[in-house]
Amino acid sequence: MASTNPFLKGSPSLSNVGAFCHAMATDLFPVCRSISGPGVRQTLGYLKERVPQLQVHAVPSGTKVFDWTVPQEWSVRDAYIEDGQGNRIVDFRENNLHVIGYSTAIDAMMDLEELQDHLHSLPDQPDAIPYITSYYSKRWGFCLTDHQRKSLKAGNYRVFIDTELKDGVLNYGEIVVPGQVSKEVFISTYICHPSMANNELSGPVVATAIACWLNSLKDRYYTYRLVFIPETIGSLIYTSSNLDHMKKHIVAGFNLTCIGDERNYSYLPSRAGDTLSDRVVQYVMRNIDENYRTYSWLDRGSDERQYCAPGIDLPIASIMRTKYGEYPEYHTSLDDLTLVTPNGLAGGFDVVRKSIEILESNIKPIIKTLGEPHLSKHGLYPSLSTKETASKVRNMMNLITYSDGNDDLLAIAQKINVPFMELVPIVQKLVKAKVMDTTR
Amino acid sequence: MASTNPFLKGSPSLSNVGAFCHAMATDLFPVCRSISGPGVRQTLGYLKERVPQLQVHAVPSGTKVFDWTVPQEWSVRDAYIEDGQGNRIVDFRENNLHVIGYSTAIDAMMDLEELQDHLHSLPDQPDAIPYITSYYSKRWGFCLTDHQRKSLKAGNYRVFIDTELKDGVLNYGEIVVPGQVSKEVFISTYICHPSMANNELSGPVVATAIACWLNSLKDRYYTYRLVFIPETIGSLIYTSSNLDHMKKHIVAGFNLTCIGDERNYSYLPSRAGDTLSDRVVQYVMRNIDENYRTYSWLDRGSDERQYCAPGIDLPIASIMRTKYGEYPEYHTSLDDLTLVTPNGLAGGFDVVRKSIEILESNIKPIIKTLGEPHLSKHGLYPSLSTKETASKVRNMMNLITYSDGNDDLLAIAQKINVPFMELVPIVQKLVKAKVMDTTR
Amino acid sequence: MASTNPFLKGSPSLSNVGAFCHAMATDLFPVCRSISGPGVRQTLGYLKERVPQLQVHAVPSGTKVFDWTVPQEWSVRDAYIEDGQGNRIVDFRENNLHVIGYSTAIDAMMDLEELQDHLHSLPDQPDAIPYITSYYSKRWGFCLTDHQRKSLKAGNYRVFIDTELKDGVLNYGEIVVPGQVSKEVFISTYICHPSMANNELSGPVVATAIACWLNSLKDRYYTYRLVFIPETIGSLIYTSSNLDHMKKHIVAGFNLTCIGDERNYSYLPSRAGDTLSDRVVQYVMRNIDENYRTYSWLDRGSDERQYCAPGIDLPIASIMRTKYGEYPEYHTSLDDLTLVTPNGLAGGFDVVRKSIEILESNIKPIIKTLGEPHLSKHGLYPSLSTKETASKVRNMMNLITYSDGNDDLLAIAQKINVPFMELVPIVQKLVKAKVMDTTR
Repeated sequence: MASTNPFLKGSPSLSNVGAFCHAMATDLFPVCRSISGPGVRQTLGYLKERVPQLQVHAVPSGTKVFDWTVPQEWSVRDAYIEDGQGNRIVDFRENNLHVIGYSTAIDAMMDLEELQDHLHSLPDQPDAIPYITSYYSKRWGFCLTDHQRKSLKAGNYRVFIDTELKDGVLNYGEIVVPGQVSKEVFISTYICHPSMANNELSGPVVATAIACWLNSLKDRYYTYRLVFIPETIGSLIYTSSNLDHMKKHIVAGFNLTCIGDERNYSYLPSRAGDTLSDRVVQYVMRNIDENYRTYSWLDRGSDERQYCAPGIDLPIASIMRTKYGEYPEYHTSLDDLTLVTPNGLAGGFDVVRKSIEILESNIKPIIKTLGEPHLSKHGLYPSLSTKETASKVRNMMNLITYSDGNDDLLAIAQKINVPFMELVPIVQKLVKAKVMDTTR
Repeated sequence: MASTNPFLKGSPSLSNVGAFCHAMATDLFPVCRSISGPGVRQTLGYLKERVPQLQVHAVPSGTKVFDWTVPQEWSVRDAYIEDGQGNRIVDFRENNLHVIGYSTAIDAMMDLEELQDHLHSLPDQPDAIPYITSYYSKRWGFCLTDHQRKSLKAGNYRVFIDTELKDGVLNYGEIVVPGQVSKEVFISTYICHPSMANNELSGPVVATAIACWLNSLKDRYYTYRLVFIPETIGSLIYTSSNLDHMKKHIVAGFNLTCIGDERNYSYLPSRAGDTLSDRVVQYVMRNIDENYRTYSWLDRGSDERQYCAPGIDLPIASIMRTKYGEYPEYHTSLDDLTLVTPNGLAGGFDVVRKSIEILESNIKPIIKTLGEPHLSKHGLYPSLSTKETASKVRNMMNLITYSDGNDDLLAIAQKINVPFMELVPIVQKLVKAKVMDTTR
Repeated sequence: MASTNPFLKGSPSLSNVGAFCHAMATDLFPVCRSISGPGVRQTLGYLKERVPQLQVHAVPSGTKVFDWTVPQEWSVRDAYIEDGQGNRIVDFRENNLHVIGYSTAIDAMMDLEELQDHLHSLPDQPDAIPYITSYYSKRWGFCLTDHQRKSLKAGNYRVFIDTELKDGVLNYGEIVVPGQVSKEVFISTYICHPSMANNELSGPVVATAIACWLNSLKDRYYTYRLVFIPETIGSLIYTSSNLDHMKKHIVAGFNLTCIGDERNYSYLPSRAGDTLSDRVVQYVMRNIDENYRTYSWLDRGSDERQYCAPGIDLPIASIMRTKYGEYPEYHTSLDDLTLVTPNGLAGGFDVVRKSIEILESNIKPIIKTLGEPHLSKHGLYPSLSTKETASKVRNMMNLITYSDGNDDLLAIAQKINVPFMELVPIVQKLVKAKVMDTTR
């Protein structure tokens, strides 16, 4: 599957995929994203330049989605706090985390005591601006560092938030990369977070690089579907609109989040815990980093919550570097582009790419002969039988003995303790010798 | 389920249930019980005063019961050994263990050598009178301490046993406490042992207290059936007469024996080992005493032998404090009311009560929404989303994610590591919000 | 099942079975066996003298066998290397390992350099002649010790191999010892190896002793089928001709190889791993030597490869002393009759015999009564009930409680931790008392 330049014109080679991803993240970092609004459209438009087949969908405010309702569309024009001297001491234009997500508008004077009820900071992380939202309950507020908050003096302040909350649409992006069959591998990531890098620009840029790479491949067995959605409401919208199709077609899927730092590799299973997705991700991670962290379904907190909910039950596992909630910069202004690096993103990309490569090759081998095939007749076995003969063809013989149609190649690789990719050419030889069939 | 005075008029409160049980045991201790006869009727009559709905059944001698036959009815008027000087040196009136259970009558003179063949004592426990029976083979004999036996001098003795073995009836008691449904929780204990306290007055008195408590409850989901039977022949009689009903209705059951001392908590599984009864008892015991002892089915020795026999296969597990055969006083006169204490009985009562409370609340929750419900809409989730939001509703979210209709609440409590009783009000909130159904 | 002289006239007693086997091995050691040819016929003829019902089958060269073809028949009249002085320095008549199995004929002069391409020795074992074959590719060659090879001086040598490879037959032997039922226990061993003792004369001589012992038994439940075949091609021929019969009739089977040394006891499972054969062999070995070695299916290398191949899937496990490939003498001239001893062979025989004894007695017991049977009524339980009563009949009670028709006697023996053979008379007593049935 390797090729010297597998990517489409204008796309990165595998060797600079980290830089490609990091450059996208750098461009998109300042955009004020939320679960709806112009920042989302700007982000999807940017990604569509890299993957032209990306389609942008729009769902009207008020649409019923299972137990939920699509909220109104939100946009921010400006937001600041001015002190008595007219100085902007907190300014949305400096950092879009300063205003609560979905904050209502306000233009008022108030003293510090009244203002305090609308301020959010983190005493334990005095240099960090927290990330706060209030999508489904109307309120206004500002986020700031605790240092800044503590420096505020008694007096009057002007609070100005020029936001708009109106009936509009919620947008999300979808890329389909067709394959030989309509069975799908599903990849999901979210585009609702403003200026934070690991959670969450890493997922969208790695997913975009994966789409570029998939486009560059000559031949794909599976169809690939990648969705760029707002968290929670987006996965609810997508599954509510496509559940029958998803249940029928998805053979494996991955939720990509916090996939760009260099600290760990982390895996969070599907609710079922033993799906094909789970088996593949665990296999790949163990081979990349034997100290990768496995979380439990009880540790979940991203869109796997919806994809694996009772009655939905899709085979979707989460691929991460350092898990959300497990690193100190999480959900603050400290989650920035120093935490997320080209190397970190390239490592996340590799887990996804290798998982896909295994899925593509993961046939079920079926030996066609009763008894062992006469390998030397097919040129696959030494004709001279000595003490050492058996060990030379051990992997091939072990593959054959488990090719009874019950196990896929990944299961056999683990049973016989041989790297998956070493088995692929052996299968090809046996198929060519007409002693093996494959199925899915 | 708690209430300030849950018991019926004249019954104890939960806080003095141990004293209530111990007082009953004290009253009943001197009665000469066996598998049939007046002592059994006297005992059942006494218990009926506490639980008026107790019904006394009578099965005629000679009735065929599976591979067994109901033996004749036995009664003792008097029994003693007199020495040459006319002194009663062994006297049934002093301790009813002195005569072998179902001993035939005799009135004869004999020398010590001949007498020895009919004496039973315990060289290793020289102060204990052993408990010996011979229900199905005719013989006569006395039990005495080894000290007393060794003090017997050569000479002639008069042995006098005035027992009667005649066609009559075998009695047992049955209490039904009706519930909303005809599905039953079954509790069994035995009333065939003469003056011994842990094995066996503890079971009957704790079962009686449980019946009082059940009667005091306003509402019960299950019907409760408590039987007070002679060991072995009683459980055979009961199952042979009621097997179809039992197999159809019993959802869980407990055999209560040796449930009144303060040493251990002990659990002996059903033959299947993984029934609802087993799961509940283990859960309750682990929470009361993490060092509780688990025995194997191979250690069985009480009526679970019949209830779980091949072809009967009821889901009945045994609840004990210190298991029969595992304490030195077992089956001797040392098993008395100093070994069995109010605290010990209260502890045994608690295991049964808590097991019942779990059974009553052990519904299967089923989440009605696809995807997670919109909890904040239902007032069940903070509307402001911060770093800590998830942990505040963690238990509710974990309950929801496993509410797929496959697991009962007990299984979910164990999967998500939350005390069962903490989940009950959460289920109630979700049901009230109309996002959850429950089934059994 | 024991008897003072269980063997047929002319056969050994159990106490000298090792000597009986070793004597056969000594007689057969010099014969030049291969997968076909006169050595095989001579060997089968010798064994038929001990077990007259042995039938010799012949399969024509060129017969198609699954993916294989029966090779031509091979015979050696003479083979040697002469040095320049006319001395026979390597001589087939001294050791039939000196010529490659299925070597083609040659009569030529050549210098040492050219000769070297046709010589095989073992630098790590300079005193051993290696065992080399080339059944399916035409070549000629000699095997010799590395010491001898290194002593060869430059110069001309005459190489003379007078072999014949012609259309003929491949022979194998088959013994059927009939039983009450047509269900079969299958035993396989191979007769294609020339002068090596553990691998492989131990298997044929132990299988022959087993046939003698089976013939000596008055009554057998199962039919026994023992095959003496060339390795690989023989098991392929046998299964291709008899697959339907085998799949329908074989309840258990054992492949005997390397079963005559004194070092270890070793077990290699069937591919399925949990068949009746696997359970029996593991049980017997654990009881003979708790340090017996268990190999994995990945360690396989004998005819279990064919018997357990996908689509064949017979319940056949391998019984060995020290496994092929695991001892230094393996596949060399050092695998001789000092390595294989009467004691070693007797130990191998014992594993097979005890496995068969268990299979013969391994009924499924079914208790006929509901509830426990009234054992004292049947004279099987003490009529006097004391503290110790239960322990005296513990094994019988434990057997009864698991006699629900789900478990065979071997499973019950393991559940209740009682030696299998101690349960057999208990079953007989219960059957006699008409409270137990048995099935298979």
